Formats: sequence, structure tokens, C-alpha cells
Amino acid sequence: MKLVPTVLCASMLAAAAARGEEGMWMPAQIPDLAPELAAAGMELDPARLADLTGDPMGAVISLGGCTASFVSPEGLIVTNHHCVYGSVQFNSTPERDLIQNGFLAATRADELPAAPGSYVYVTTGIRDVSAEVLGGLEPGVEDAERARRVERRERELVDACEAPGGRRCRVASFYEGSLFLEVTQLEIRDVRLVYASAEGIGNFGGETDNWMWPRHTGDFGFLRAYVSPGGQPADPSPDNVPYRPEHWLKVATKGVQPGDLVWIPGYPGRTYRYRTEVEVASAREFTMPAYVRLAKDLIAILERENQRGKAVEIANYGRIRGYANAMKKYEGILLASRDGSLEAQRAERERRIAALLASDPALAVELGDPVAALAALDAEKRSTERRDQVLDALTRFGSVMLSQATTLWRLAEERPKPDLDREDAYRDRDRSRLMQGIARAQRSIEAGSDRAGLRHVLGLAVELPAGQRIAALDERLAATGKATDGERIEAFLDGLYAGTRTAELEVRRAMAKESTEQLAARGDSMIDFARALAPVAAERRARDRALEGAALRVRPAYMKALQKLANGRLYPDANSTLRFTWGKVSGYQPRDAVAYAPRTTLAGVLEKATGEEPFHAPAALLAAARTIPPGYLDPALGSVPVDFLSTCDITGGNSGSPTLNGRGELVGLAFDGNWEGMVSDYRFDPDVVRTIHVDAVYMRWVMDEVDRAHGLLREMGLPVLTDN
Amino acid sequence: MKLVPTVLCASMLAAAAARGEEGMWMPAQIPDLAPELAAAGMELDPARLADLTGDPMGAVISLGGCTASFVSPEGLIVTNHHCVYGSVQFNSTPERDLIQNGFLAATRADELPAAPGSYVYVTTGIRDVSAEVLGGLEPGVEDAERARRVERRERELVDACEAPGGRRCRVASFYEGSLFLEVTQLEIRDVRLVYASAEGIGNFGGETDNWMWPRHTGDFGFLRAYVSPGGQPADPSPDNVPYRPEHWLKVATKGVQPGDLVWIPGYPGRTYRYRTEVEVASAREFTMPAYVRLAKDLIAILERENQRGKAVEIANYGRIRGYANAMKKYEGILLASRDGSLEAQRAERERRIAALLASDPALAVELGDPVAALAALDAEKRSTERRDQVLDALTRFGSVMLSQATTLWRLAEERPKPDLDREDAYRDRDRSRLMQGIARAQRSIEAGSDRAGLRHVLGLAVELPAGQRIAALDERLAATGKATDGERIEAFLDGLYAGTRTAELEVRRAMAKESTEQLAARGDSMIDFARALAPVAAERRARDRALEGAALRVRPAYMKALQKLANGRLYPDANSTLRFTWGKVSGYQPRDAVAYAPRTTLAGVLEKATGEEPFHAPAALLAAARTIPPGYLDPALGSVPVDFLSTCDITGGNSGSPTLNGRGELVGLAFDGNWEGMVSDYRFDPDVVRTIHVDAVYMRWVMDEVDRAHGLLREMGLPVLTDN
Repeated sequence: MKLVPTVLCASMLAAAAARGEEGMWMPAQIPDLAPELAAAGMELDPARLADLTGDPMGAVISLGGCTASFVSPEGLIVTNHHCVYGSVQFNSTPERDLIQNGFLAATRADELPAAPGSYVYVTTGIRDVSAEVLGGLEPGVEDAERARRVERRERELVDACEAPGGRRCRVASFYEGSLFLEVTQLEIRDVRLVYASAEGIGNFGGETDNWMWPRHTGDFGFLRAYVSPGGQPADPSPDNVPYRPEHWLKVATKGVQPGDLVWIPGYPGRTYRYRTEVEVASAREFTMPAYVRLAKDLIAILERENQRGKAVEIANYGRIRGYANAMKKYEGILLASRDGSLEAQRAERERRIAALLASDPALAVELGDPVAALAALDAEKRSTERRDQVLDALTRFGSVMLSQATTLWRLAEERPKPDLDREDAYRDRDRSRLMQGIARAQRSIEAGSDRAGLRHVLGLAVELPAGQRIAALDERLAATGKATDGERIEAFLDGLYAGTRTAELEVRRAMAKESTEQLAARGDSMIDFARALAPVAAERRARDRALEGAALRVRPAYMKALQKLANGRLYPDANSTLRFTWGKVSGYQPRDAVAYAPRTTLAGVLEKATGEEPFHAPAALLAAARTIPPGYLDPALGSVPVDFLSTCDITGGNSGSPTLNGRGELVGLAFDGNWEGMVSDYRFDPDVVRTIHVDAVYMRWVMDEVDRAHGLLREMGLPVLTDN
Repeated sequence: MKLVPTVLCASMLAAAAARGEEGMWMPAQIPDLAPELAAAGMELDPARLADLTGDPMGAVISLGGCTASFVSPEGLIVTNHHCVYGSVQFNSTPERDLIQNGFLAATRADELPAAPGSYVYVTTGIRDVSAEVLGGLEPGVEDAERARRVERRERELVDACEAPGGRRCRVASFYEGSLFLEVTQLEIRDVRLVYASAEGIGNFGGETDNWMWPRHTGDFGFLRAYVSPGGQPADPSPDNVPYRPEHWLKVATKGVQPGDLVWIPGYPGRTYRYRTEVEVASAREFTMPAYVRLAKDLIAILERENQRGKAVEIANYGRIRGYANAMKKYEGILLASRDGSLEAQRAERERRIAALLASDPALAVELGDPVAALAALDAEKRSTERRDQVLDALTRFGSVMLSQATTLWRLAEERPKPDLDREDAYRDRDRSRLMQGIARAQRSIEAGSDRAGLRHVLGLAVELPAGQRIAALDERLAATGKATDGERIEAFLDGLYAGTRTAELEVRRAMAKESTEQLAARGDSMIDFARALAPVAAERRARDRALEGAALRVRPAYMKALQKLANGRLYPDANSTLRFTWGKVSGYQPRDAVAYAPRTTLAGVLEKATGEEPFHAPAALLAAARTIPPGYLDPALGSVPVDFLSTCDITGGNSGSPTLNGRGELVGLAFDGNWEGMVSDYRFDPDVVRTIHVDAVYMRWVMDEVDRAHGLLREMGLPVLTDN
């Protein structure tokens, strides 16, 4: 970004002029962007893009954590390879290694069931329910009660919305509790795996290249949605038929060029663009570095365990990948923000808010001092930050067995309550998800590794300062009668792992039906430990609910000030609802004397292809690369384009999002952000934040020349250039 | 290198057109290059550059392993920081950490003695002695005898040349034994350390950035040469006075720009451009990967030992750095040549030789089949490659104590011989060097680490295949009476390290005066082991001498064919004699979608400056960076230029070489090659081979603004822009 003008190529200068296009806009806001969009090359009417159930937005769907799109009238879905990875893994066996070899269903009958819990969500409506959620909540209501009432109203709305069946509804908060929208989605439950390339294409570069540019990953995969013969969502059944969507995207037959407009509809998960200076500093000072340290330690521990053999390695694969992914993201944020620029940006914003309030006494009375109020909430939260991290590690991510026991105990606690009073995850409508989670956990349970991870977390727990101790744990360790912390932990773990059957799936399934009394009567040591930790977790939930209620008072005030400063042109933080972002195909300058071009090539794949994981391009690709049909060759590149960069503004959840050109044709799939742009969850720096896309030209070339997925190409109305 | 035209900036396209300028030419060849040089912007008369003792070539000097140049009439010398590092280290104490803090002599009297063995060599003459060396060597002479006679003639010439005293002479072989030149050099023995920046400037980036671009290292340092009041070389003495060179370089006050011509005079050490396909394949198949494996293991072993404490770490620092440097170089070569392009290039060359010989029967009769003959020599050499590697590791680099014992034993073996019959390193003229080596070894001796390294090498020795076993070692291990190899090695090492005093410098100094009988009578276990290994080493030397004699027959034939193919325009492989290379300031494209600009900036230093080693820029630099006097600011960069790239063709030994512009002004110092260009010792790929230089503008800025070396700037006739 400090590269000199003299070494910039013309296209890079153009890109620098274009800069990034900040904002994950609500579709309803797109018409407001009409002038810029038209200037950038948008040929579609922006008003049309605001129609969520029309063409093309109606073709864009959610898979839960990923975005996807229909690409044929027969329910064919394209998304990222890493979004269908779980389904590939689910169908893989040592004898039939679909991960390594890829999978292509020869006929519809050969399509495989997607992994349990793979649902397709088609947004069918959005409705403003702010009045229902917030109405009549007088200012004097105590914070915890405020949060409870809002939660309850949301649940009531959701239940009413879902009553007809076959739908999934959700009340989403926008602008930090200023606006509540009810989103209705068709929930398709029979989803099948159609096609995924070999890992050496779909995950080429693996962890080494993750978050990185230049990238050479063919990160695409195909599913198909099935419904009952009557066209209704249905449980998986051989009688089901392909879903016929109203709209589907057309894949472009011409690739993008540097400077081209591209846009992305998708379901970005979570951003923190409206957190204050104090909140950002907290995340940078404690939350992120503490997680990085813990993840690094847990990864090292599991990798040591992996030396015990292949089975251990397989069990720990997902955990390590999960820790590493989040850790690398946080490291990127910390690195990019170590100069204090993030806090400086917030401080500047807060100075502007202060100036605004100083100039408008009436507004000042109405809003109070939201910055100071948020600082107070943050201080309250930080007072137990180390304990809360240890608690999370204990009950959620440091030990699969203890987190399972915690879930089972919570389920038993919540079951006797009326459904509307239960915590969200334990409501009837989420029971099957919960049971799928219990089943899914099985592949990550390996008692030795579990114990090693938990040992480390207990080591952190005994280091907690006074005032943040977990008494229930302290008592249990003391009860071992041993002298040192280390000995106490070992003795406690001996008992814990000798006396539990939570490693057995059938036992956990049985436990999931039991009451607290029945669970307690089992005398299972892991369940007993979860039970001992339950009161402290409950106390923390109550505190968090109070904080949430307070935030519902304060954050909308902060946002109202920002709305004023932005003249109403403000996009909300991401919240897993459908958003629109646009930008241009553009490289960037990651550091002094280095320039990144916006497109990579097949020649670059061959440069990296050592044959060893993660650069294990399959032989079929190497063979196909020898002669490229002109239809896939980019003349400027002299090769097949593979991945490209754009200035679009995305985050996790956008994975698999279609990337469209100005005519609304699919030119790629978003699959990652760049390393230098990791900080973008907090701040969008147009000089360096980039979205990484797999190029539809590469997808077509691989389908045609490498994997011979000719039937699918034809189904999408695409030419097959080499059919022999 | 596969970047697309559309993303290239104008200056990069210009650079691509310029390409690299292959060749480390002998100064006498420079006039032949006149047309290209003039076209590229050389303003000096090429004939003038061929004058070794004129201006500017007479200012270029050798420091042994590095190149340097006089930059004032008072004997001031500029070279790389890493070339004066040993002297900085030598004068450093825990109380006065010159490495960390840098050093600047306030007055001449404050200049510090350079490390023992730091000599300055000023070339004063070159004379063709081919006739004396090769004359009357009839073809029938047996190979070993041929090598012996050539060696002896070289020694006689050297002795005659050095007779007047104060000179160092050498007979160097060019074109693989086709041409022999006697080089006479003034040897200045009183050399003092004048100035070296803090390590956070001079070695900024350290091992992390070593071989890498973008680079931000201020790799410069200053020495001064002293002679007797009568102007003769003399041992260090307070009575000595600064040497007054006939010529010294002027430092430019204007920096380079992309596309500018630059040229480098210097002393490149060793290249292998004329090795055959078979020889290159041997290096790639065995020599380099075997060294990489061994170095990696030894580094890991020493790093484990380092955990025992700071003293161990200091002792192992030099060894680890040495292994890592060579290892990284080999890894770079292996990576760049894994596609077989190196062998392909040689195969193509050898096809052209075959075609030439097929077309010229007389030449074919004269030259025979040099390619086949060299292949036979290579096969002979490979027959003991594993044993030879282990032998080298035992006697030279795997254990400092055993290599010292080996040297001492060899010295005793050679001493009784007439001086002319001794191996070069053991001749009287090299005695003080040898004693300095014994003294220098002391800082790397740490018995625990030494044993750990030797244990690993012995582990390799017991794995040697039949036919390559080292019997003397096998017998000693068997004599321990233990059952397994592991137990035998431990038992042997127990005795070896309990029974030796070779870790003591004074003991080794005493041993260096003793005969083989006296040494043997000591009963020192390490000396005894060296003595046991001596016969196998001697046998290997005899075999190597025979191979060398054969090469003296065969290689000149191969070179003669190449000379014919090149129409006589062929540069010789590097051999530590003064050479000339030229090129242009130019970036490159290291891989798909990545472009490197040819210059880095002070802004880039700040980007990297984390404060932690090796990115520990000193506070004075950070402070000075806040306001830059316009005289040091490059308008195009908007910052101070730090390092730059050129297409010049250099190798190890060129470190510290002055980089000159077309007017002969010093614009920088060469200090490294780039990672992608590592293969250049074997093949010069103009697309990616680059020399890395520190920019004289950065040197001047650091001297002026950071270290306030104003006296030195004035001594060089340079302006001081900020003197307050």
C-alpha cells in the first residue's frame, strides 16, 4: 500500500482509484446506491435487486453457515467446496475416499445424502416487526427483564410464523436493536451431494494458503435440493423429487477482467463495525490474544496426541482446523491493528458523535452518552473475562466430552419448562438440530486427546485470579487430597475419564431423553462435573442477559447518532441475513515493494503443484493442463483464470456466495477474504480489504476438462468444449 | 514470471525488456562488452574499467570472503555490515554490546582492532602463468601425478611472487584449468573497525529476511586500513598510519531509479555454470539434499541444546547460522530446479557440443568426448558419496572438537615435509591463518553441543552401506563391547569426551607445535580418534587428487567446445578473482500474480518494525523517520529508498561489493541474491535472478540522521544535511 506510483501498472492505478466499496447493504437499500452502481457498470435495475423473491435474488439461498445459489431449474445448487466438505466427508470411507478422489454422481440416482443437518433455506419474505418486539417497553423496565421480554416476543413471532410448517422463521436485529425484521424461509430438508472435485482442486493449498493471496483453489461444489412429489419440504426419501426453484442463476461464458464490476448477494454472519473504541480495545487486549494463546496451545497438544496414530489424527482433524481457522483470523486482525489505527478510527467517530450531541441539545437529552454507557457495560463484562474464557473452554470448545455433558445437562434442565421459556437452542423446534449435533460430535471424540485438552484448560483455571475463581472446580480439585495443582488435576482427570460413558453415542442419545434426576442417578463423572459447573454458567447467563438488556437501551442511541452523521445512509452490521455488496476486480499492494495482481492462473496452479498435500493437484488436472481449449483461455493471462480478487465487502457466512457481473450472470463464487483484510470485521480499509473468488471460467474448465461433469454443464445450459 | 501484461507497470515492462545481464566477466573482457554497456548508459570508457590498478577498479579490494572498496584518501573502507560483523562481535562484551547498539569511533584513536585475521587485499597485478603451470605436461602423465605437478608449480610461482614480502599471491585457474593467472595483492594486516550500525539496522530482518525480497536491511559498515609510517603493510601497531590508497570511490549524492544501469566489481567466490548434466543431477540428487537433511538435523539438535542456557546459545550461534545459510541456499536451488530445467539446459548444451564435434572431425579427435569423460569421473566420485559426506561431517563441520583434532593431527603429519610438498593450508605462509582458525574455533566449542552433533553424525556412519563403511570407526564402536549401535555410540562418546582436552584453547595451541609422536603420546581421546580417521581421509585425498588430475585433462576440452560455440565470448566460472558484472535496476515477478518493485523504502522498514528481533529498528531510527530532509527523499517513492534490486550476476564473495552507476559513482553495496535466483550458481535465469543492494541514499540517511556519523560523511566529501 506504500508502493510508488512509478511502479504501479495502469490497471492497478485504476483499481486504486476505484478503491473498495464498503458496506453489506440490506437489499431494500440497493435502490439508494443506484448512481454509483450504474457508474460502475451495473446493467440491472437496482430496484429489481431489492426484490428478494424475484430474479436474480430469489436464486440466492442459505445453507446455514454458507451461502449458495440455484443454477438450474432442477434444484441444482452451487456453493463452495468447503461448504459441501462435510457431506463429502460424511460419505467417505477408507475404501471409497471421496475427499481425496472427489465425487461426481453419474445419474440423479447416484446422488448421495448430504451430511445430517444440511438444510437449504430459501428466503420467501421479510417483514418489519420492530413494533411487536419493542412496543410498550417503557424505559424503566429493568435490564434483564427487558432482554427477557424481547426474547419472548421474538419466540412468539417465530412460532406464529412457523406454524404452517415447512418454514424456518427468525427475528433478526438490525442496527444493534434499532430495527427487527422477521425473515421467513422455506426449509428444504432433503439435500444431496451431486459433485465435488478432488481435495487437490477444491482445497488446493489447504491451511497453508488459507486466507492468502495469491490463491489457486477450485473452491466449488454442487448439491441438489429435493422436495416431496407435491413440492413441499420433506424428510429425505427416495420418493422425493428435485425442487423446482422459481429462479436460478445463469453462469457467464465470459470471464471477468480487472476493473469489472462484480456484486455479491449472500448471508454474511457477524461484523463489529459499530463497536466503540473501548470495546475494540477490549477485543484487542484480551479476547483475541487470549483465544490465540489458548488455540495455539490446544493445537500443539492435539498434534502431539496425533502421533499416537491415524485414528487419533482423524478424530482431531476438525478440532484442529477449527482452532486454526479462528486463530489465524484473530492473528490477522491483531497484526493489522497493532498500530492502534482501529482505536484511532473509533475515537475519531466518537469525537464526531460528541460534536453532534454538543450541537444538538435535544438529541443529547434523547440519546444521553451512549459511548460512556457502552464503556461501562464493557467494564462490567471485562471484570470476569478470564473466568469466562475458561468457562467457555470448559463447557464449549476445550473438551468435546465435557461440552457434550454440558449440553445434555442443560437439555434436562430446560425440558420441564414451557417451550416459550426455554433457551433458544433447547426449544422443540431445534431438537433435531441438537440431536444432530450430538451425533456429529462423535467423530471428534477421542478420550486421550479430550483429556489432554481438558488438562490444559484446568491448568488455566487454577491460575485464575481471586474474584474470578470457579469454586465448583476448586472444590473438586481440593477433594483429590493431592498437594500440587498438577497432581490434583491428574487425579481429578483420572476419575473423570474412568467414570464416564459420554464418549459413547448411544449413551448420549439415551441421556438426551432423561431428566436431571435420571442423569444425576447415573453417577456419570462427566455429567456430574457438568452439573457442578451449571450454577456458575447460569449465573453468567443471567449477568449476560442483564448486559444484553442494557445494550438494547444504549446501542440504538449510539446507532441513531451514527445515522444522523451518515445522513441515513448506513448499512447495518452483518447478522446472517441476506445482504448485497459490490466492488470491482482489483489487486492490491500488501506491503512495501509488493503488488498483487487480481487474478491467478492455471500456470500458477502448476507452479505450486508439488504433488504433496496441500498442493496435490490430481493427475487428471495436470494432464488436462497440457492443452487448453481456446474457450477457457484468457488471452491477457495466456492461461485459464483460476481465482480473482474484488473490493467487495464480505465476511464469514458469505462462503459460497455467487459473484455476479453487471448483467447478473454468475462469474465466480466468493470463498475467502485476504490476510491483510482480516481486520475488516471491525473496519473496512479499501486499500487492502479484498474478497477472494473462484473464477467461473476455472470451474467450467475443471468440470469440462478434468472431471468431465458434462451432464451438469449441460443442465446449466453451458457448452461442453471437449467431449471425447 | 507468469504475470499478465495487463498488470505490469510501465517500469516493470521496461525491466522485463532489459532482462538480466548474465556473466561475471574478467576485467580484461570489459572492452568486448563496450557496445551493450554504452547502450545501457555506461559513461566510463570500458577500456579504463579493464585497468585493475587504475580508477575506479583500483579502489576495489578483497577482505578474504567479502569485497569492499576504499572511499576516502585516508584508507576508509566501506563494505557490508555482515562483513564487519565478526569484528563487531570480537569487540563486544556483555557490558558494551556493540552488536545491539552499533559502534561509531569518535576519533581515529577510538577505532577498534578488527577481528584477528581481518586482512585487506589490494590487487596490484595479474599475469598469465598458463605456460609455467601447464607447460611440458605430456598427455601420458598419470592423473594424480599431473595434479601434483600442477600444484607444485603453482606453489613455486606463489613463493617467488611473495618473496619480497607484504604481498599475497595466488595462481588462479580460469575456464576449468584452461588458463592460469597469477594474482598479486598487497596484504594489509592492520585493519580497524570504524563504524557499524546497530544490528536492528545492519541486520534488520535477520535470518527471516535472509535471501528474501522485499528487504529492508542497512547492510553497510566501515573499516580503515593502516600501514607502517613508511607506507608498508605491517602488523597492528599504534604507530601505524592510515593507508593512502591511490584510488577511492566517490559516493553518489543522487540515488538510482528503475531502469538505471548499475555495475559491480567484486570477488565472486564459486559458481558451477560449466558443470555437465550428469554433474548437476548428482548435486541435485545427492549432494544438496543430503546436506539439507544433515544441516536440518544438526540445527534441531543444537537448538535443543540451546535450551540449556545463554552461554550454550552464544557458542552455537555461529554454527547454526552457518548451517542455516548453506541449507537455505541449497533449498532454494532445489526448489527452483525441481522441474528438471537445470538438467534440461545442460542436456541442450551437450547436444550442441555433440553437434559441433560431429561437424568438425579434427576438433572431435582433439577433444575426445569430454561429456562422457566427465560423467565417468562423476560416477567414480559418487561411488563413495555417502561415506564422504559422513567423513566431512566428522572431520570438518559436524563437531568442532573433532575437526580441531583433525587439523592438529594433519599439521603434525605435514610439518616434517619440505614446505613446497605440504598441503596448502599447512604451508608456512598459512601458519598464522591456521593459528587464528584454532583461536576462532574456541567461541564455538561447547562440549555438550559438540557431543550431541557428533552423536548424530556417528548415527549416520553406522547406517553406511557396505563398501562405504569407515572401518576405523566400526572397530572403535565394536570395541565398546555394547550390543546395539545406540549403546555403542554412547559408550564411545563417553570415553571420547572424558578423555580429551581439545576443548581448551591453550592445550590446542600447545598441540599445534607437536609432532605426531608427541601428540600420540598425550593419549588424548579426540586426537586418537582423529588419528584413527587419518588413513581413510588420506586415501580419499589421494583419490581426489587423481580425479583432479583427470579433470585437468577433460574440463579444458569441454570448455574449448563451449568457447567455440560462444565465438570466444565466454566468461569463466567465479573463482574469487576480481570480476565485473552489470545490469539494470529492475523488479521481477516471483510467482503467479505477484510483482516485486525494485526498491524498498523507509516506510517499509516502519511496516516491519515490530520492535522484536530481527525487526528491532532502534529508537533513533524511528525518531529520525518522523521528518525526512528533502535531500534523502525520493519523490517517486515518497520516502527514503532503502534497498534495491538489479539484474547483476553475482554470488557469495561479492558481499560488500560497491555498486556503481554509469558515471562510476557508488550508489549502493551488493549484499545478497534473491531466493528465486538461488539457482544462479548453476544457471542464470534473467527473469528471476536479482542482486539485492543497500541503497547509498539509505546509508547516507542513516549516517547523517540516525547515527550522526558526520565526520565520516565529510571524510567522503558528502554533505551533512542535518547537523544539530
